[in-house]
Amino acid sequence: MAGNTFGNIFKLTTFGESHGVAIGGIIDGCPAGLKLNFEAIQQELNRRKPGQSTIVTQRKEPDTVEFLSGIFEGQTTGTPIGFVIKNTNQKSKDYSHIKDVYRPSHADYTYEKKYGVRDYRGGGRSSARETACRVVAGAIAKQIINSIKINAYTSSVGDIFLEKPYQDLDFSKTERNDVRCPDQETAERMIEKIKAIKKDGDTIGGTITCVLQNVPIGLGEPVFDKLHADLGKAMLSINAVKGFEYGSGFCGARMKGSEHNDLFNEDGTTTTNLSGGIQGGISNGMDIYFRVAFKPVATIIQKQNALDSSGNIVEMQGKGRHDPCVVPRAIPIVEAMAALVLADFYLLNKIYS
Amino acid sequence: MAGNTFGNIFKLTTFGESHGVAIGGIIDGCPAGLKLNFEAIQQELNRRKPGQSTIVTQRKEPDTVEFLSGIFEGQTTGTPIGFVIKNTNQKSKDYSHIKDVYRPSHADYTYEKKYGVRDYRGGGRSSARETACRVVAGAIAKQIINSIKINAYTSSVGDIFLEKPYQDLDFSKTERNDVRCPDQETAERMIEKIKAIKKDGDTIGGTITCVLQNVPIGLGEPVFDKLHADLGKAMLSINAVKGFEYGSGFCGARMKGSEHNDLFNEDGTTTTNLSGGIQGGISNGMDIYFRVAFKPVATIIQKQNALDSSGNIVEMQGKGRHDPCVVPRAIPIVEAMAALVLADFYLLNKIYS
Amino acid sequence: MAGNTFGNIFKLTTFGESHGVAIGGIIDGCPAGLKLNFEAIQQELNRRKPGQSTIVTQRKEPDTVEFLSGIFEGQTTGTPIGFVIKNTNQKSKDYSHIKDVYRPSHADYTYEKKYGVRDYRGGGRSSARETACRVVAGAIAKQIINSIKINAYTSSVGDIFLEKPYQDLDFSKTERNDVRCPDQETAERMIEKIKAIKKDGDTIGGTITCVLQNVPIGLGEPVFDKLHADLGKAMLSINAVKGFEYGSGFCGARMKGSEHNDLFNEDGTTTTNLSGGIQGGISNGMDIYFRVAFKPVATIIQKQNALDSSGNIVEMQGKGRHDPCVVPRAIPIVEAMAALVLADFYLLNKIYS
Amino acid sequence: MAGNTFGNIFKLTTFGESHGVAIGGIIDGCPAGLKLNFEAIQQELNRRKPGQSTIVTQRKEPDTVEFLSGIFEGQTTGTPIGFVIKNTNQKSKDYSHIKDVYRPSHADYTYEKKYGVRDYRGGGRSSARETACRVVAGAIAKQIINSIKINAYTSSVGDIFLEKPYQDLDFSKTERNDVRCPDQETAERMIEKIKAIKKDGDTIGGTITCVLQNVPIGLGEPVFDKLHADLGKAMLSINAVKGFEYGSGFCGARMKGSEHNDLFNEDGTTTTNLSGGIQGGISNGMDIYFRVAFKPVATIIQKQNALDSSGNIVEMQGKGRHDPCVVPRAIPIVEAMAALVLADFYLLNKIYS
Repeated sequence: MAGNTFGNIFKLTTFGESHGVAIGGIIDGCPAGLKLNFEAIQQELNRRKPGQSTIVTQRKEPDTVEFLSGIFEGQTTGTPIGFVIKNTNQKSKDYSHIKDVYRPSHADYTYEKKYGVRDYRGGGRSSARETACRVVAGAIAKQIINSIKINAYTSSVGDIFLEKPYQDLDFSKTERNDVRCPDQETAERMIEKIKAIKKDGDTIGGTITCVLQNVPIGLGEPVFDKLHADLGKAMLSINAVKGFEYGSGFCGARMKGSEHNDLFNEDGTTTTNLSGGIQGGISNGMDIYFRVAFKPVATIIQKQNALDSSGNIVEMQGKGRHDPCVVPRAIPIVEAMAALVLADFYLLNKIYS
Repeated sequence: MAGNTFGNIFKLTTFGESHGVAIGGIIDGCPAGLKLNFEAIQQELNRRKPGQSTIVTQRKEPDTVEFLSGIFEGQTTGTPIGFVIKNTNQKSKDYSHIKDVYRPSHADYTYEKKYGVRDYRGGGRSSARETACRVVAGAIAKQIINSIKINAYTSSVGDIFLEKPYQDLDFSKTERNDVRCPDQETAERMIEKIKAIKKDGDTIGGTITCVLQNVPIGLGEPVFDKLHADLGKAMLSINAVKGFEYGSGFCGARMKGSEHNDLFNEDGTTTTNLSGGIQGGISNGMDIYFRVAFKPVATIIQKQNALDSSGNIVEMQGKGRHDPCVVPRAIPIVEAMAALVLADFYLLNKIYS
Repeated sequence: MAGNTFGNIFKLTTFGESHGVAIGGIIDGCPAGLKLNFEAIQQELNRRKPGQSTIVTQRKEPDTVEFLSGIFEGQTTGTPIGFVIKNTNQKSKDYSHIKDVYRPSHADYTYEKKYGVRDYRGGGRSSARETACRVVAGAIAKQIINSIKINAYTSSVGDIFLEKPYQDLDFSKTERNDVRCPDQETAERMIEKIKAIKKDGDTIGGTITCVLQNVPIGLGEPVFDKLHADLGKAMLSINAVKGFEYGSGFCGARMKGSEHNDLFNEDGTTTTNLSGGIQGGISNGMDIYFRVAFKPVATIIQKQNALDSSGNIVEMQGKGRHDPCVVPRAIPIVEAMAALVLADFYLLNKIYS
Repeated sequence: MAGNTFGNIFKLTTFGESHGVAIGGIIDGCPAGLKLNFEAIQQELNRRKPGQSTIVTQRKEPDTVEFLSGIFEGQTTGTPIGFVIKNTNQKSKDYSHIKDVYRPSHADYTYEKKYGVRDYRGGGRSSARETACRVVAGAIAKQIINSIKINAYTSSVGDIFLEKPYQDLDFSKTERNDVRCPDQETAERMIEKIKAIKKDGDTIGGTITCVLQNVPIGLGEPVFDKLHADLGKAMLSINAVKGFEYGSGFCGARMKGSEHNDLFNEDGTTTTNLSGGIQGGISNGMDIYFRVAFKPVATIIQKQNALDSSGNIVEMQGKGRHDPCVVPRAIPIVEAMAALVLADFYLLNKIYS
């Protein structure tokens, strides 16, 4: 397996299976002399952790990060930051029934075919538990680029859409409800929807919108590593993501140039922002905003057919404790991945400016 | 500027501005002993080149690729393949009017701010002309993975959508019309639309759907370098792209798990394919399909306000020869980028199988 | 700090300071299905660990490796292998005297100037303790390329040279004495030398010769990543190394072409092997051999002048427990780095063969 | 083939065979706004080119570099710099006799075994002609780090050694003689030696010493990418190099710590410099100096046995025009590779300072 490293300058490499000893990672390339706010890091992990509300998985894991290196007397030394998060609440027995079974729309089958061997417990490496490491690194990245505001929120759950544009929202309200939608009225409908879905033993998809504000002009490299291309890859690498669009997105594909062009103000800002804050792959100082689509979680608590390793179709039923909707817990992951991309380009840009 | 290399094993590095001496590239990591079909390579370039039909830019450039190395007696030697495409039809004077002007929704302003200096002629490095190099490399990549079928086609132009699912299409018809839509009736409406838009001096967006068939099981790396994450980045790195979705995409975000899960057949195939041929970031042998959104071309032949380098709003009008809709010429680019991603993962996978 | 990753396919990333919580690493790119011999891994660590004999530092550290991921039921799963080695015998107080002092020929001064902050305890990240992580990864790499024989040994300590060519040595005797020289008579003289040096509170340099046998033809990439270039970098990245030569080495620079050329036998082997098993950067199947020079350890138990952070010359004396000669404990490190290079090229070569 | 790229930030990728259409490269990561001195670039190429004196190959090639991109109105734009050097004086017929023959101590055999196919003319990709591209990129790198003085010179030819330390030399005299040794008396003996060797149809090895002065403190990354490790790899990647040592080098391995430690002056400089300007992998501001060993050129104009592709030993005799000693023409290559390493670390360091 390759591909466990993200970033070019501020690099995160992660390891770990959901039911192994621990998950963790190494951050290489963090500048020295950064006074870390450890509470802020743990706070991000808490936003992602299981069991935080009634609409997410009831699994309880403290998800406490332990730093092993790279920090001395509270500040970074420039050396690699190693960290681990112990796996404490493994109910591996919950998974003995899937040892020889490939669950539909999971990674069981593809891992088995690719590697010939797999740690089937809890999805092993394919578990979204891996994203806790991204949240740790993202929380540090946020402290490097602390003048940039990163705000993600739930913009739809199933067919319930938050219809307001982001400009009309108060992001400080996002954390006030369990679904992380800053519009309270919509949030309540979303929560109701998730509860109903959960009662049915089913799951539901949704979308997250993320807004990046106060981004300096000049981030992004203009050919293959366009800022939005790396943001897109970052988001698509999160479990369950099926789509990414930024600025005008898929709607932009229906528009005319005369409608779509963002005219300049004298100070270099633009009167409209269908470009989504990026032109030619480089940030232009306007708000960057994008939308990420999450499919419904594949584990449902209903009887379903699965395939066993002998090629038989067998009936199975999801056990364990799962999320009826992945979106509320994915908010800090989306923000973390955005922070990783921004910090990476921010540091890279120091070379050339 | 960084980020002019794509791929990890089969690596393409490109150079060149639209109005410089030449554009070109180096392919590193191509296996030895591949008998190249040079006609097929030039044919792909011809599909992308300007002037090929009445609905694309009327600029004439032969876009002939010259190989400088890495090929001996018609086959690859395993050494890097250097190639150039000369710029022959530069009307640099067409661009003198934008020397000190930043066109709306172009990369002029961001390049200037990032680099402090830019080759303003024809967009310089930000010109979509760079993608010709991708088409060359993609055409070679296609020959490495020649059992995989790669078919892209125009699935919408503005509000005209091809409503049929890809399974109902005959891809051999894609090249039969100028807009590259395999459904003739829809194609005609699209062409009509583009002609009307062109007459107005305006431009229009659109979408491309791409289908990858006969992909071996096991391509993709399961954490950051998921197959769809790299496909997404590849597509988002193409000029004018605003969005990417694969499988159920944004629609999947509205669905329930019980609807969305793809149940297995006994042979490991699935009865439905909302996953889009990828599970856990790894190909599962089913068709991979994705959709790419292109915004309308920013250069319009209408009067528009622009910004000059002294901070004044000035009136300008697009000159030169531009595409009213980028989508028909982007088809071979989408295919090329898909081929680059697939060839890269295909070669990487040899290590582990 | 960048540069904490080694390898392209079989990649090791390390973290950790000598007096932090732990050191450790992540191996990404290890093939799945490898049944690990854990005893062999720990055995390599034991060869490197402090306190193993009277001629090395008397610090006692068990240096037990704990694997956190990537292994299931005794075999690799293809996912990243995370591991830690706890720091158990830190006498950080030993180092309080160097908090504001830069020791001569250590990395204290350069770290301070580069990073502005440093963990001064035990040399922090610059401590050779980091190499324990390389030994772990190297021990796994050895199991991937287990048909290749890797044998390093002490070929000189100060002015005492092992005069015999490697062909006259029995490598099975290397571990029979504390200095790891396979010639018992020379070994005894070396040990005596080290003991005398130690008694004086001084240290001494030395060289290690390493022989790689049964290397398949074709490893190495012929331009920048020549096999010997990567071996050289690997060795030069080990603490205290000042030089690297392979095959005829510096002696070859005194020879004539008519003397130096290795003539072929009919089976493709060569009658002589001044090339050192590598031609054009690629292994040719003959033995690869190289020599690595280590300077004397900088910490001596004698009074010396040092520089303090206020710019004063101050007298200091090395405390703590240090090696009088680094070479005996560096043998497994040299082998580990050679194994990492070979495994990396071995896996890469699968793509092209 | 992989490994045709050098550097992490200032990246050079090269292509080309000695008897193909052209050789060339792409430099990615060059900062914008650098006013290039083109004459200085060509001048470096001239120092490397064949036919420049009576003691090097009499092949005549103008080796004129043509820049294709990345430069606008005389200065770099930050976009990739593509360049080619045409192959103009190919006497490919000179090589028809080696089509099916593997010359001793050349790369013919290993290329054939690795790739199964090769461009045998003039050594193809394994020809030292590739290094002309390194000289181009190095000449640009020198202009980025123009306050650093880089001086290489011939320090031995066969058994004739320049005995003076570099501090006693006047580097401005290096170019005054054909062998590039700044001590005229020694130079004359070296030239005489090479002429005698040439007359015999033989070749001779030698060493190059390189001195880097005025290097800022802080270059180099302290674990795997130590400054001297990357310098070592850079040198070992040059054709015919067999060894590398820096600072005290192999001599240092014979010394005691009390002799070898470099004591500080109050200003952070050191009274001696056995460290060679690098401590812990990071430059300390003192002079960096290193020595590189070159084997004798393998092509000799004497009868020798070779191996043919059918497994027969056949007699052959070198034809064509070859260097009796590679060292004089390798001086600019050593300097270029040093410049590439320094520029890369210099740019990287901007991120962290």
